Amino acid sequence: MKMIIAVVQDKDSNRLQDALVDKNYRATKLATTGGFLKAGNTTFMIGVEDAQIDDVMEIIRENCKSRNQMVAPVSPMGGNADAYVPYPVEVEVGGATVFVLPVESFQQF
Amino acid sequence: MKMIIAVVQDKDSNRLQDALVDKNYRATKLATTGGFLKAGNTTFMIGVEDAQIDDVMEIIRENCKSRNQMVAPVSPMGGNADAYVPYPVEVEVGGATVFVLPVESFQQF
Amino acid sequence: MKMIIAVVQDKDSNRLQDALVDKNYRATKLATTGGFLKAGNTTFMIGVEDAQIDDVMEIIRENCKSRNQMVAPVSPMGGNADAYVPYPVEVEVGGATVFVLPVESFQQF
Ligand code: NI
Ligand code: NI
Ligand code: NI
Repeated sequence: MKMIIAVVQDKDSNRLQDALVDKNYRATKLATTGGFLKAGNTTFMIGVEDAQIDDVMEIIRENCKSRNQMVAPVSPMGGNADAYVPYPVEVEVGGATVFVLPVESFQQF
Repeated sequence: MKMIIAVVQDKDSNRLQDALVDKNYRATKLATTGGFLKAGNTTFMIGVEDAQIDDVMEIIRENCKSRNQMVAPVSPMGGNADAYVPYPVEVEVGGATVFVLPVESFQQF
Repeated sequence: MKMIIAVVQDKDSNRLQDALVDKNYRATKLATTGGFLKAGNTTFMIGVEDAQIDDVMEIIRENCKSRNQMVAPVSPMGGNADAYVPYPVEVEVGGATVFVLPVESFQQF
């Protein structure tokens, strides 16, 4: 038995949770006020058998991996026209930081 | 030294915290937004000496164990009379998922 | 690789976060609803290489260690004049409870 601690972006959080539920993994979401010091992250705590680690890692990778995304131009608010970029830009989104911790024992009551 | 991670239902959370305080155990409650993928859970993080594990496990079991409870009929809101059950029903409440993690070192400042 | 779990007082939390960022440590702050059963604590989860443990411990100690602080007299509200202390008093603030957990593997996606 292992405990997987995964810190992922909020935007990927619901999709990851759904994918874990679909495969009957037990996960707890912790409210995180600053994920690895960037805002907007969620921490999953997932209890798994050793044989399930690779599968859960693959689920996390598929749903949360860092990727580039085109973002539509945002019209300048508050008159800050200098910051206005009138065409879509590519930004990096997603990404997951994952720790696997040993578990000495596990019980359910 | 070990770290006990216990995911329990919100409704048992205050009682468990009180029982831990009564016996001078150090516990931290983490805000959990979805406990093992069911809503309304709380995660306790409890630092214990090896010799205290059995005692803390017993406290968790006593205060959180899964049990059946009679629930009074709820009058149908919003006109959903089909869902109305006019007699008390038995539902399962409580339950705890508990992990014991090894701790390499512990310090207080 | 290790995971450092540090429970600190809310009042030291921003300073600790800033000190960790300054030295490029990866930390996640967990919302804690009762830190080691006292209110107002924050839990940091910090992933570190073994060689960094002493440095991070020193950062935590410097920013969070238990110390005495003079508190200005507070004028009695609600007519509770009995509780009024008309001179500054020294109170203990800060303090950190720190666990170092072994990590079996670590991945970033
Ligand atoms: Ni699904
Ligand atoms: Ni009591
Ligand atoms: Ni700074």
